[in-house]
Amino acid sequence: MEQSQRIAIVGLGLIGGSLGMVLRRRKLAHTVVGFSRNPATLRAAKSLGAIDEGTGDLKTAVREADIVVLATPVSEIVPLALRCARFMKPGAILTDVGSSKGEIVAALDRLLPKAVAFVGAHPVAGSEKRGIGAATSAIFDASSYCIITPSARTNRRALRTVSSLWGGVVPKITQLPAKRHDALLAATSHLPHALAFALSASAPDGGLPSMPRSFLEMTRVAKSDPDLWAAILLSNRSAVAAAWREFDRSSAALRKAITRKDRKALTRLLAKAKARRDDCKEQ
Amino acid sequence: MEQSQRIAIVGLGLIGGSLGMVLRRRKLAHTVVGFSRNPATLRAAKSLGAIDEGTGDLKTAVREADIVVLATPVSEIVPLALRCARFMKPGAILTDVGSSKGEIVAALDRLLPKAVAFVGAHPVAGSEKRGIGAATSAIFDASSYCIITPSARTNRRALRTVSSLWGGVVPKITQLPAKRHDALLAATSHLPHALAFALSASAPDGGLPSMPRSFLEMTRVAKSDPDLWAAILLSNRSAVAAAWREFDRSSAALRKAITRKDRKALTRLLAKAKARRDDCKEQ
Repeated sequence: MEQSQRIAIVGLGLIGGSLGMVLRRRKLAHTVVGFSRNPATLRAAKSLGAIDEGTGDLKTAVREADIVVLATPVSEIVPLALRCARFMKPGAILTDVGSSKGEIVAALDRLLPKAVAFVGAHPVAGSEKRGIGAATSAIFDASSYCIITPSARTNRRALRTVSSLWGGVVPKITQLPAKRHDALLAATSHLPHALAFALSASAPDGGLPSMPRSFLEMTRVAKSDPDLWAAILLSNRSAVAAAWREFDRSSAALRKAITRKDRKALTRLLAKAKARRDDCKEQ
Repeated sequence: MEQSQRIAIVGLGLIGGSLGMVLRRRKLAHTVVGFSRNPATLRAAKSLGAIDEGTGDLKTAVREADIVVLATPVSEIVPLALRCARFMKPGAILTDVGSSKGEIVAALDRLLPKAVAFVGAHPVAGSEKRGIGAATSAIFDASSYCIITPSARTNRRALRTVSSLWGGVVPKITQLPAKRHDALLAATSHLPHALAFALSASAPDGGLPSMPRSFLEMTRVAKSDPDLWAAILLSNRSAVAAAWREFDRSSAALRKAITRKDRKALTRLLAKAKARRDDCKEQ
């Protein structure tokens, strides 16, 4: 990562703001310029040390940037990328932080002008909070990592630059094709979020002094922003549907064993599920 | 709670061991006697300060006790209660810590001799760990509480004694009919556990550097003991099935909105689920 770089962060929410804080604190960029339509967000980003400069004008934000990072909700990434591309200097690199990648990568590979090099990325980090007020370098902790999703159109320099950018921020970088990324994240993040929302919606209203810890823990992510998550679930809907069918199979097996009072089968299913979970790195 | 009491804890696992530690540390009993078939468990309980005396003989454990607390897996509570009753002195009180209450309370109300006063209890506390090695007074923290499930057969003295016992251990006591207890716990603990096991079983094996935090959190309870949870799910199967149907309804609504790409409906459902979760006391 050349320290002489000017990095524009478009969208100063939890991820964009936290990224800016780390880039500035670790001196991974010469200048971090932030774009937000909201002047209060720009002020907050400035006072939190997330940006060197802030602007509500997209052209001003991106025209001198060496790297432009789109850190908006997934539904806004493609249209904003196309607008940014009109203003970016030749050779500048565009990347994003979207939680689903297939739709974004396919659309930008098709629609971006050749002069703008794009590679998708997804920092697997964050919390149920949103907005610049929740930004903190702590989200990029030892368990966080970034998935870069190169495609046939990705050029090497862009891949190297974006890998280097995130390599300075999170402890681990990995590469996956966008489709594979989407299938894995559907099963391990998007579906879990959907189940948490469904569980929260179906829970009884009152009756206990407080909800048991298992419920609170399983539904924490249902405190996440509904707009953000509607966009993620819709943008990755076919992979989410496939993961849900897989979940249906394992939950149907459990239900059957319970209904039939088949303790042996039930214990075996639970033990298998436990073994899978025990194998997960916790970090 | 008279400090002159002798309390027998039958089953020295996570809950029994932790209860003994608190009773002794806070001097809530004159003597805590522990029963386990496993001599190593008795030794561990002694060295952890969970019991004053330990024995592998049930009669020795319970015959002088003023209160007998059954802290075994739910499937063993009824048969052990009936054995204990044969040895208990007149006027002694029997209680349990089972996570489901309907089957236990109904069976013991029917089968116990009149001389033994029984009232069911469920300390809502614990973790995914099991066994005396995991016992700690910390499980009875500020968010823990105990649900006492009196029935038509419960006598006042037993209710007072068991309420007083748990009142010294957890910050809050509440009373619920066993059936209501089971419906509430099915929806807020037993179903969440089953979903966590199902999610863990359906997750892809590898492909990511580590599982996202949402997955780890939603499946932590899938690290729980399969035998214990098979017994809980089976003993509360009709309430679990009812809670699962309720969950089906809210998850079907989400899936439909996703499949139809109905962002407005999806956002509304997620927002409703979030509002429910935001309303939960965290503590």
